[in-house]
Amino acid sequence: MWNKNFLTQKLHIEYPIIQAGMAGGITTPELVAAVSNAGGMGILGAGYMTPEAIQTSVRKIRNLTDKPFGVNLFIPNDDVDSDVVSQMKEHLQNIGPFGEETAQVKYENNFSEQFARQLEIVLGEKVPVFSFTFGVLGKKETEQLKQQGIFVIGTATTVEEASQLEKSNVDAIVVQGFEAGGHRGTFLRPYESSLIGTMALVPQVVDKVCIPVIASGGIMDGRGIVASLALGASAVQMGTAFLSSHESGAHPKYKQVVLQSQDTDTVMTNVFSGKPARGIRNAFIKSMQNYKEDIPPYPIQNALTRPMRNWAVRESNSEYMSLWAGQAASLSSETTAFDIVLQLVKGTENILKSLR
Amino acid sequence: MWNKNFLTQKLHIEYPIIQAGMAGGITTPELVAAVSNAGGMGILGAGYMTPEAIQTSVRKIRNLTDKPFGVNLFIPNDDVDSDVVSQMKEHLQNIGPFGEETAQVKYENNFSEQFARQLEIVLGEKVPVFSFTFGVLGKKETEQLKQQGIFVIGTATTVEEASQLEKSNVDAIVVQGFEAGGHRGTFLRPYESSLIGTMALVPQVVDKVCIPVIASGGIMDGRGIVASLALGASAVQMGTAFLSSHESGAHPKYKQVVLQSQDTDTVMTNVFSGKPARGIRNAFIKSMQNYKEDIPPYPIQNALTRPMRNWAVRESNSEYMSLWAGQAASLSSETTAFDIVLQLVKGTENILKSLR
Repeated sequence: MWNKNFLTQKLHIEYPIIQAGMAGGITTPELVAAVSNAGGMGILGAGYMTPEAIQTSVRKIRNLTDKPFGVNLFIPNDDVDSDVVSQMKEHLQNIGPFGEETAQVKYENNFSEQFARQLEIVLGEKVPVFSFTFGVLGKKETEQLKQQGIFVIGTATTVEEASQLEKSNVDAIVVQGFEAGGHRGTFLRPYESSLIGTMALVPQVVDKVCIPVIASGGIMDGRGIVASLALGASAVQMGTAFLSSHESGAHPKYKQVVLQSQDTDTVMTNVFSGKPARGIRNAFIKSMQNYKEDIPPYPIQNALTRPMRNWAVRESNSEYMSLWAGQAASLSSETTAFDIVLQLVKGTENILKSLR
Repeated sequence: MWNKNFLTQKLHIEYPIIQAGMAGGITTPELVAAVSNAGGMGILGAGYMTPEAIQTSVRKIRNLTDKPFGVNLFIPNDDVDSDVVSQMKEHLQNIGPFGEETAQVKYENNFSEQFARQLEIVLGEKVPVFSFTFGVLGKKETEQLKQQGIFVIGTATTVEEASQLEKSNVDAIVVQGFEAGGHRGTFLRPYESSLIGTMALVPQVVDKVCIPVIASGGIMDGRGIVASLALGASAVQMGTAFLSSHESGAHPKYKQVVLQSQDTDTVMTNVFSGKPARGIRNAFIKSMQNYKEDIPPYPIQNALTRPMRNWAVRESNSEYMSLWAGQAASLSSETTAFDIVLQLVKGTENILKSLR
């Protein structure tokens, strides 16, 4: 049976289909619960959320499903160069009708503290699965989570990162291929030398580590699921496939752009958040090609562009939203998340039959 | 049966495994014939070869096998800027002990004429399969080939390129993913916006065209073959997997570097040939990061760096060779090409069994 393996048994899920913890309000409690109810596993993208909001969402998810689900957080990084920040702030104040709000953005170097408070909620709520991106979690925190019976998943973009995560004692690793939408999980080398396609990366990681590997990047349907299992993955993680679902919190304009996109429409950019991420090319990305100063690091740049992105949402202007999406976004469908999981299962079984 | 489909029947091959037509002396007649004799299909990488050398090699291949094989050529492009060329020539004369030979490099804008003469040999020898890269073949030439009973294969890196190739009346399309080693086949857009991972690209092309698709990029073993078939490909094309085979004409130092490589070792560069290609990072690539002028286009730059590359071969210095390789080169094995094909077949059957 394609859907029964060590990982699905450990996670107590029916199908090896995990919905990626996309941050920024996309993974509503309704989306997370729908994926879990359909037999996959939903993940709340809580990287940008306050501890209080995480708690509220986790409780909402528990009201909507008794199946396992996860919460994803971002490992913090506290380096900041204030000159770089003030240059960017000035630039953003001058390019559109969100100058005043941009001028008022305050940020504090307390990301580690914020992360500790977010993690406390995950522990306190005994969330079934905890996944993280952008680094390796401390030994102490990993131990605490595992003692609570929480299943811990890290994110790697290279063999070396996967090895380091395995050593840190995580239970499984999401392997993020070049094709993936949203932020690169890269944390060891410069991101440019950590852009490895899913087809090449998954088998190399599988050969190196002993814990289950979850493939991600460019997987949109049963074809991608069977391909990932063939490469040695125990499950897939899919983000873009759920972006345009009814339950997704993505703006209707964002969903529309994703549904109408083509294979060559995405680009890797750090202009929205300070961290490289894959999204659909729009006016803001194009305009920033002329910005010659450094881009402040995540999460500073993310805070600085928030007024602009909020304005874009209010105005339904997709040219200034961050339109994160993977390279196979054109294969998206517009239906309920529950239906998407059912279609994925049916598609997987059809492909398996065709290979017999 | 995984190995029987429209394409393998049309090509009269036992397994849907095609050895890529890597140029530069790698695809010796012995390599091409060994792959074909094992039930796959070898391709002579003849892009840089004189018409006479192509004829000699084709006849040698025919002495070594009665199975189908192919010849690959490069579609020419005649644009040249002489200032860019002379700046580069001066630079290369000054960086190593190959200055005199570099100074003597002559090039003529007669690439179209050269190509016409190469193609004449393909037609005259009635080569079973003709594949091409870097563009679309003219309608007239395509018709001529097909009238001779020659099977014609184009190369695409985007859905749009695949569509254009289908319209030009080719019989099948190699879809080249981001992971692939060697030159990008891109011909419609800037190459930067045509870097799509195999996992994302193959299903999108399969959904768009009606002719058989051959997957390439990051495929190294049975896992990659099953993954490609799952994505909808009719066959795979593999280059790096055959680079370190006994029959490959790659320099022993080049083979050694490939065998010892890691997932993060390759980079996309145009410094060797004027066209972006994926290879293993070495001293020449690193040094050229400081070259601020334009790089002359292919094939001028390729002619200019030939003395340097020849010197590197004589000196067994892999730091100045072009070490083309894909992102999963670490999965290479050092054996005969015949054995590699047998291992691929066995691996494919094992993966298929494991999915049942």
